[in-house]
Amino acid sequence: MITIPDTMHAVYLRGYGGLDRLEYTEKAPVPQPGKGEVLVRVLACGMNNTDINTRTGWYSPSVQSGTGDWSDAGEETLGDGMGGWSGDIRFPRIQGMDVAGVIHAVGADIDPGRVGQRVVCDPYLHAPGSMDVLDSLGLLGAEFDGGFAQFLCLPAVNAMPVSPECRLDDRQLSTLPCSGGTAMNMLLLAGVGAGDRLLVTGASGGVGSFLVQIGSLLGAEVIAVAAPEKHRQLLELGADAMIDRHADNLAAKALSAGSGGSYTVVADVVGGDAFPAYVETIRRGGRYVVAGAIAGPIVQLDLRTLYLKNLSFFGSTIYSRETMPTLVDLANSNRLKPAVHREYALSEIHSAQEEFLMKRHVGSMVLIPPSL
Amino acid sequence: MITIPDTMHAVYLRGYGGLDRLEYTEKAPVPQPGKGEVLVRVLACGMNNTDINTRTGWYSPSVQSGTGDWSDAGEETLGDGMGGWSGDIRFPRIQGMDVAGVIHAVGADIDPGRVGQRVVCDPYLHAPGSMDVLDSLGLLGAEFDGGFAQFLCLPAVNAMPVSPECRLDDRQLSTLPCSGGTAMNMLLLAGVGAGDRLLVTGASGGVGSFLVQIGSLLGAEVIAVAAPEKHRQLLELGADAMIDRHADNLAAKALSAGSGGSYTVVADVVGGDAFPAYVETIRRGGRYVVAGAIAGPIVQLDLRTLYLKNLSFFGSTIYSRETMPTLVDLANSNRLKPAVHREYALSEIHSAQEEFLMKRHVGSMVLIPPSL
Repeated sequence: MITIPDTMHAVYLRGYGGLDRLEYTEKAPVPQPGKGEVLVRVLACGMNNTDINTRTGWYSPSVQSGTGDWSDAGEETLGDGMGGWSGDIRFPRIQGMDVAGVIHAVGADIDPGRVGQRVVCDPYLHAPGSMDVLDSLGLLGAEFDGGFAQFLCLPAVNAMPVSPECRLDDRQLSTLPCSGGTAMNMLLLAGVGAGDRLLVTGASGGVGSFLVQIGSLLGAEVIAVAAPEKHRQLLELGADAMIDRHADNLAAKALSAGSGGSYTVVADVVGGDAFPAYVETIRRGGRYVVAGAIAGPIVQLDLRTLYLKNLSFFGSTIYSRETMPTLVDLANSNRLKPAVHREYALSEIHSAQEEFLMKRHVGSMVLIPPSL
Repeated sequence: MITIPDTMHAVYLRGYGGLDRLEYTEKAPVPQPGKGEVLVRVLACGMNNTDINTRTGWYSPSVQSGTGDWSDAGEETLGDGMGGWSGDIRFPRIQGMDVAGVIHAVGADIDPGRVGQRVVCDPYLHAPGSMDVLDSLGLLGAEFDGGFAQFLCLPAVNAMPVSPECRLDDRQLSTLPCSGGTAMNMLLLAGVGAGDRLLVTGASGGVGSFLVQIGSLLGAEVIAVAAPEKHRQLLELGADAMIDRHADNLAAKALSAGSGGSYTVVADVVGGDAFPAYVETIRRGGRYVVAGAIAGPIVQLDLRTLYLKNLSFFGSTIYSRETMPTLVDLANSNRLKPAVHREYALSEIHSAQEEFLMKRHVGSMVLIPPSL
């Protein structure tokens, strides 16, 4: 007999703003799994820039003025380009897109044999039967309640089984969906493989350290940009050479690093003022793939460089069909070593995000909800 | 017995600068076809923005200061990204990348049966046996002498046979390599086909009118941006709806044009201040492809739009392997109607370029060298 408690511990985001908008509660209602859904007991939930950006309303073209949110802006200025996104973040919202846990209960039409199964969650939700992978309904922790809680409900197809052979612990698994998935999606979009020379920006972050690790597993020469105190750890994760992110001439440094020469692929999660320098390092026919812009989203692009060098740029948000399965396969076969910097109790989320924002860590930071 | 004259009429570009750097001569030496080459008698040679840009030295990241040239800049600031480009435009140079003509003589190792064959020329030259299509040695009329002359030499593989069934005249054929090839390459890069909604900027130019025409042949709904006086002609070429390029709110106009809604593909040859508006009109997962930036190469890009909407950007210069064969097939099967605005005698090149720069024409402008 499965018991589902009435209430749970969770962190409510009350609205866009600072840390004070994140409120810990012990009395959140536990969601009930509906048709096609499972209820997952959260064992660990990773933290990401995405959580911060959603909280501050950064996902808005009007970020320059510091107001608004991406979803609303989509309706006004982006036409019907938002596809199936709900276009509406309702408060209170439970954030957290990076969930590892165990299936606690299932909807009426789901195999009850899945109860007890260890899972990691694909954070992009789709309408049942949707064939267009980009036609997402939204994201766990943004349009839908996520894992900063003891439980969450999500479509059964999004709860991806972890094999019994997998030796990763829950904290490590919880780094996979956002950071690992984003890195894997970027590298798949750019078609990274043996023979590629790959430049990774922001390499010490969650996505960056997976870019280094998976890029190296795929056979690329990996040159990574990070602060000097993080270089040793990234070399251990598979980087072939490191560049100081504060270096005066990033492009020149990048062109001479490792085996030398220009890059077939630049994987960027930073953007900002360094963008033109990064684009400069790409060779004819090369690819630039981006999944974040923590140093600033508005950049200057020289269209001549894009077209005269036959470059391709790829934006990565919603994952392709192969992304999560490929990533979970790597995890199940114990080829990934997710870098966990530190864990915090869920109730310590303010302290955790304060440390996160200091950007001194390498690898992921994980929140652990109280056990039942 | 093939007679090759010693001298020919040609236009020499004496250096970067204005029209005065283009000098007509009746005493240019006729090149001799070497190993692997053919000598083509030029019957018509189209004019393009590329000719103007090469003449003025616009292909340089330092265009803001109005000096330098792209090839030199490549060595300094672009690392080894220039691949096999010669990196050197020598003067005097005979410009003209858009050649239709007839094979007049062949190198010692080329089938003499090709003499008399009607040809259109692929303007991108490659080293013999080169497998990397992007590893070009350079372009006819830039790194190598082109068709503003009575004769030119080029690799035999670049002289593409025109079938006897083809009903296009020489002027029409000479619009294909640069304008038609660029348009075809852009549409192949963006994978345009039935079901696409395609926005074409700068639609009245040579590339633009081919984008409209080929986009429509490929089954896309084509919305085109041009000055009002050019709308009728572009509708006849296959555009489904037209937008005034001087309209106040280009993005809103584009989103409501034709069947309405955002675009799966934007094909841009204009760039400049309208770039953000064009990117705004692209739907999630859509593609932006660019092959020119006549309104200005330095643009503002919001990386959030690129990645949060899973966009892809493609730069088009050197053609893929399928581009010229696919285009010539369309021509040989009489499915293309190249728009020729007007022809000028080669000796009238100054007047021709003055009219070209007024941008009042639709379709291509063609230079005709004197017959022998």
